[in-house]
Amino acid sequence: MERRRARRRERQADQAAPLAGKPFRHLKNPLAPVEVLSPEQLDRIHNASMTILEEMGIDFLDGEALELWQAAGARVDQKSQHVWPDRELVLELVARAPAEFSLRARNPDHCLHIGANNINFATVGAAPYFSDLEHGRRPGTLANFRTMVKLAQLCGPIHMVEGLMVEPQDVPVALRHVEKGYALLTLSDKVMTTAAHGREAATDYVNMAAIAFGGVDSIRRRPVFASNVNANSPLRFDDRMLGGLITYARHGQPVIVTPFILAGAMSPITMAAAIAQQNAEALAGVALTQLVNPGVPVIYGGFTTNIDMQTGSPAFGTPEGALALFSGAQLARRYGLPYRGSGGLNNSKIADAQAAYETQMSLWPAVLAHANVILHSAGWLEAGLVCSLEKFIIDVEGLAMMHRLLQGIEIDDETLALPSIAAVGPGGHHFGTPHTLARYRDAFYLPIVGDRQNYDNWAENGALDTAQRAHRLAHELLQTYQPPPLDPAVDEELQEYVARKKRDVMRKT
Amino acid sequence: MERRRARRRERQADQAAPLAGKPFRHLKNPLAPVEVLSPEQLDRIHNASMTILEEMGIDFLDGEALELWQAAGARVDQKSQHVWPDRELVLELVARAPAEFSLRARNPDHCLHIGANNINFATVGAAPYFSDLEHGRRPGTLANFRTMVKLAQLCGPIHMVEGLMVEPQDVPVALRHVEKGYALLTLSDKVMTTAAHGREAATDYVNMAAIAFGGVDSIRRRPVFASNVNANSPLRFDDRMLGGLITYARHGQPVIVTPFILAGAMSPITMAAAIAQQNAEALAGVALTQLVNPGVPVIYGGFTTNIDMQTGSPAFGTPEGALALFSGAQLARRYGLPYRGSGGLNNSKIADAQAAYETQMSLWPAVLAHANVILHSAGWLEAGLVCSLEKFIIDVEGLAMMHRLLQGIEIDDETLALPSIAAVGPGGHHFGTPHTLARYRDAFYLPIVGDRQNYDNWAENGALDTAQRAHRLAHELLQTYQPPPLDPAVDEELQEYVARKKRDVMRKT
Repeated sequence: MERRRARRRERQADQAAPLAGKPFRHLKNPLAPVEVLSPEQLDRIHNASMTILEEMGIDFLDGEALELWQAAGARVDQKSQHVWPDRELVLELVARAPAEFSLRARNPDHCLHIGANNINFATVGAAPYFSDLEHGRRPGTLANFRTMVKLAQLCGPIHMVEGLMVEPQDVPVALRHVEKGYALLTLSDKVMTTAAHGREAATDYVNMAAIAFGGVDSIRRRPVFASNVNANSPLRFDDRMLGGLITYARHGQPVIVTPFILAGAMSPITMAAAIAQQNAEALAGVALTQLVNPGVPVIYGGFTTNIDMQTGSPAFGTPEGALALFSGAQLARRYGLPYRGSGGLNNSKIADAQAAYETQMSLWPAVLAHANVILHSAGWLEAGLVCSLEKFIIDVEGLAMMHRLLQGIEIDDETLALPSIAAVGPGGHHFGTPHTLARYRDAFYLPIVGDRQNYDNWAENGALDTAQRAHRLAHELLQTYQPPPLDPAVDEELQEYVARKKRDVMRKT
Repeated sequence: MERRRARRRERQADQAAPLAGKPFRHLKNPLAPVEVLSPEQLDRIHNASMTILEEMGIDFLDGEALELWQAAGARVDQKSQHVWPDRELVLELVARAPAEFSLRARNPDHCLHIGANNINFATVGAAPYFSDLEHGRRPGTLANFRTMVKLAQLCGPIHMVEGLMVEPQDVPVALRHVEKGYALLTLSDKVMTTAAHGREAATDYVNMAAIAFGGVDSIRRRPVFASNVNANSPLRFDDRMLGGLITYARHGQPVIVTPFILAGAMSPITMAAAIAQQNAEALAGVALTQLVNPGVPVIYGGFTTNIDMQTGSPAFGTPEGALALFSGAQLARRYGLPYRGSGGLNNSKIADAQAAYETQMSLWPAVLAHANVILHSAGWLEAGLVCSLEKFIIDVEGLAMMHRLLQGIEIDDETLALPSIAAVGPGGHHFGTPHTLARYRDAFYLPIVGDRQNYDNWAENGALDTAQRAHRLAHELLQTYQPPPLDPAVDEELQEYVARKKRDVMRKT
């Protein structure tokens, strides 16, 4: 019994080894950013978006936002809650935002730098469903959410844990954000993201982060999380999103202003128009953050893709989405803003070939474009409706491969190894050379779920497909989970905060 | 009965529609090539490879090749069949090769341009096994080969048909190349590639192509196929490959000189050394083509990847392979040579997620690096041992998405559609606007096997994974196959050539 357990532990350690060899590491893209728009095209998009703001304007469905715009001298119609900011004002406000900033993590080694050519991978977010091979697809639970936070903590190539990874539908709506916040702040010590669902939830996130990070002043000076704020495209920010944006900006926390555009539905069907509209909406949101708190960090978010005209479904991991992602990065660079893209978008119902190739049609552009924050990098399935355990692990492999790729090639006398080439000579082999023996353990990328056995061995070992191997690895990994250190006083205070919130909510209902 | 058949035909046309909307189209990559080596690094690789040639030299296991080198003034040891060409000679010879050239196809619309930023996708080549979901994995047959040529002909995004797609193991070895040649020249009218398996097979390919393309002089003036020639790395070209190289070069047909390097086995384990050795070998082969026939077109081939140090297997679709691919393209550009990469490499045993993400780790670098000929773009599985029916269709989707991506974004007043944005206004939708209605049919990329149904519809329709959908589509497509027009006299002459070869081989055995 004892021996069997020991063997199992050994096997687990073995299985987890490929990930153990991929610790958390900061990532920069040393390659020149790939640009799909010429400078003239970029100008045309810019000018079109300025015209949209000046002539068509944009809804801000929040009294405080409207007052801020009015005070800044923008043309505002309070009755229709509409603002027509001119380009001078918008660009002046946008220019106040920093080009780069840092996000603090509970573990100082996990702090992140946002901007320039820094690349940060975040998990999937906002999936209502959870799926794994064992139990299939079902509404997400708090247990699922906690499992995913642990996995994100365990996987080195993941930089950020999305605060909405999977919706805990077994928790009352009014309490979900505090339950998620507690899990994020205790089960992981990586940078987290949060949601911008109104002033109350945002305030709770700020308060809980303040408990974990040394107080409200401390997090205002050195921000600790980023929150996605969607425009309700076309040309509208609702009160919920604006409540979040204003609350976070006031407390010094960066928001990611992301127009939610599916071309053909929330914008004209032509990608030029979709991108111009995205730019107008994103800059309007960015400008508002600077009205709230001049100089507060903020991220330009791009999520534009297209509708599938046959099914009416949003289409993800598409060439059009890739072009929008590249274009958005060019625009963000033009304004000196950090950029957010997405890394794992796809429409597949299962973690199969489609899931993988569509994901790559999202990940490659995000990395090549120099997206600084890449949301939905791991775990996304089914147009974002599903957080998949297996897809998460498979995606981590893709991220780890990008980590290796961006390290480039080391070229010096040692690595050129001319004496070794000479010693082996024509027709020989390099298996046993001193040069090889000194390096074979970590010379090459070691796959996580990729299988390189020959056919017979693979078949003998169960002929598992990638998703089945990922399933096994996820469970083996989770066996190794250790919660990161946490001051018990902080834990207690966080628990009290959650308990108080529960009492408040009970009282109200 | 008649009605059922009509319905079936209709359904087939429907299913094939996504491919019907993706006709053959020439492809250019308008983006700046992605470069992973700095100019200084490129110099170091170049210099190291020149040192390899000058100081270590290279085996040419063929009397005619040795004589050509000797006549050109290179230092040659006839006994050890070894050549030490100095850099001046090599670079002078390499400079004779054209930077760009055309390849003729039987259908003039399918002629290809090789070089600059032209991208040409070729099918998988050289797989000994064939697999499909119905019958599994088994040795390839001539019937399999013919099926794959038909599929390649049917799929618009495919530019070139690999002459070795899958090995017809049911045909005597001495006859395989003529059977393949006959299938290629009759079942498809796209540019084909051939093998370089000795003087005799090469001569047969030349003769058969001459029948189909108006004679030996005609194909010498305007080449009609390209042939891969592998170096037997390290530092050796064998008599079989050299027989092919010399025969093709003499007849004006371009070869693709591709060192076969798995770092850690055929070269030192460090990628810098692997790339330097690749460069030495490739340039030596390129130089030889120019000794045979000055000015003959030739392609610099890169196939360098790494060994998996745990299994000893070749590892494909790896970050190291991607870096080698990018580096090779930079080197080829430096010498003004067209470049060959690979587009679908992977180690997976089935057409699953691993197959797809490793393939993308090969395809994206090949396209971004400006590889002019991208071999193995469709159908490759299991480290190249298997040509897979389903993987072929899935890969065609990846290629079609690249086609769309590289078209970029059209930006003008029409596509910026400001009046349409103004007309819909905040919070509206663009589904029924005149701008949408005028464009919805072909505004966006339409997936081939990608499924965008919602979960319930997908489940009701059988919950098929990508490979299952690809299987169905392949068979539906094949139902629509029509052989391209062919002069009956040419067909007869080709048949006679094959029959004569059969009689010759019989007589000898």
